[in-house]
Amino acid sequence: MAELYKGKPVADALNAKMAADVTALKEKGITPTLAILRVGERDDDLSYERGAMKRCESVGVAVKNVVLPADVDPDTFFKALDDLNNDPAVHGILMFRPLPKQLDGEKARKMLNPAKDVDGCTDGSLAGVFTNTELGFPPCTAQAAMEILDFYGVECKGKRAAVIGRSLVVGRPAGMMLLHKNATPTICHTRTVDMPSVIREADIVIVCAGQMEAIGKEYFREGQVVIDVGIHYSDEKQKLVGDVKFDEAEPIVAAISPVPGGVGSVTTSVLVSHVVEAAKRISQ
Amino acid sequence: MAELYKGKPVADALNAKMAADVTALKEKGITPTLAILRVGERDDDLSYERGAMKRCESVGVAVKNVVLPADVDPDTFFKALDDLNNDPAVHGILMFRPLPKQLDGEKARKMLNPAKDVDGCTDGSLAGVFTNTELGFPPCTAQAAMEILDFYGVECKGKRAAVIGRSLVVGRPAGMMLLHKNATPTICHTRTVDMPSVIREADIVIVCAGQMEAIGKEYFREGQVVIDVGIHYSDEKQKLVGDVKFDEAEPIVAAISPVPGGVGSVTTSVLVSHVVEAAKRISQ
Repeated sequence: MAELYKGKPVADALNAKMAADVTALKEKGITPTLAILRVGERDDDLSYERGAMKRCESVGVAVKNVVLPADVDPDTFFKALDDLNNDPAVHGILMFRPLPKQLDGEKARKMLNPAKDVDGCTDGSLAGVFTNTELGFPPCTAQAAMEILDFYGVECKGKRAAVIGRSLVVGRPAGMMLLHKNATPTICHTRTVDMPSVIREADIVIVCAGQMEAIGKEYFREGQVVIDVGIHYSDEKQKLVGDVKFDEAEPIVAAISPVPGGVGSVTTSVLVSHVVEAAKRISQ
Repeated sequence: MAELYKGKPVADALNAKMAADVTALKEKGITPTLAILRVGERDDDLSYERGAMKRCESVGVAVKNVVLPADVDPDTFFKALDDLNNDPAVHGILMFRPLPKQLDGEKARKMLNPAKDVDGCTDGSLAGVFTNTELGFPPCTAQAAMEILDFYGVECKGKRAAVIGRSLVVGRPAGMMLLHKNATPTICHTRTVDMPSVIREADIVIVCAGQMEAIGKEYFREGQVVIDVGIHYSDEKQKLVGDVKFDEAEPIVAAISPVPGGVGSVTTSVLVSHVVEAAKRISQ
């Protein structure tokens, strides 16, 4: 029986810390503010937006919603982004992507001010996570995985770690964050040969393969800590599942984060914590 | 007996390709130009500068030397850097660091235009090597190690790779470049536990530990390819040696780059190839 690394207590602890920081900032006359820039009405975006707004409200972070129609012209969109970049009352910008095809998503990503890039998508943020400096912010999901390790007291120093997946949203940043915590990380991906034996070497495994229940018992051994970043709806099981075959991994490993209720429960708190951190950096 | 991966033929091949590219650029009226910005007269800088100038001359790349006194005031220095950033006739800038203490080295690094950062030291270049995009240039030494693998036909795809050292100049970029070539990289460092057994798992080993002859026979097994990035003067042996105990590794592994005559022979060619590449990017 593995210990369950649930996300809720991790998020609660982050929220408590944030609420205290927000109070301190407000005493200085600063209200940390997240701008949400959304084009159109995609369900995914709306759902994430509701979660982010609720979290902001609960810790005292203000939200400025900028909603543009799905057929917005580029000039209007880029003017709106530029205004948010330059608005001193806005500390963080969440820009939903992908953008509709009339808008150049890469141009938008490059235009976004890294200091306000609370979602960790700009080159500045990615350089920051690679160099371990306070340049922008790490991608929220990668950091959420690390927050879970931190909260449950998993010591990374001297440990073998493995990441399954090399995306810029999770895999590569998570590999770097593990390195910065003095783990010895191995980054695995679709071209890795005999991945199960590589993963069995690791003490800490971050799974962001992006494939539903692709990672079964052959990947695991006793004593491992497993963080499952995947989230998929299984038509067969009629419920949310992860990248890991939970029922196979759980009896073997020392600890595992569940899906749902694991990493996904922490991500929004990390996003909002970046808004607070952005406001703190400016106030210093 | 290991195959010796000497640097000279690698550099020769790079130089031949560059010379052809330079000819093509000159036909378009573009002379690729490297600006070398040096403050003071440090021996290390002067030695590297001579090597770079010689290599530039041999392939037809022009050099613009900007030499400032060791006690230069910040305004003069930053004006000179800004001028080079903005000079359309300058394609690459080699800025020797560390700078004397009256100059803010971090400010200078941040000011350098990534498009001209042929030495791969800016955040833009580091984001480029992390994201595998044409943003700036990879650090020359890391790329020199990869050029040796390429030249000698070492297939990275599906191979285990290990990097000893996690500097931003070699270790971390080399890990990312191995990943981009579809190897499965592990980044080791001073906090790695039982490093020899980690390294023995790898098919390809890049050693940039920064310690003279620190890596002995216990790290190696049959079939490995070893690239030794280290370069140190051994007072005891009265000659240049690497990070690897060459005499111990060579009888075991399949291939190894010697020191001297390995990675160090390729670095300057990589630097100059970046100048040519920078000119090509602008000309497109």
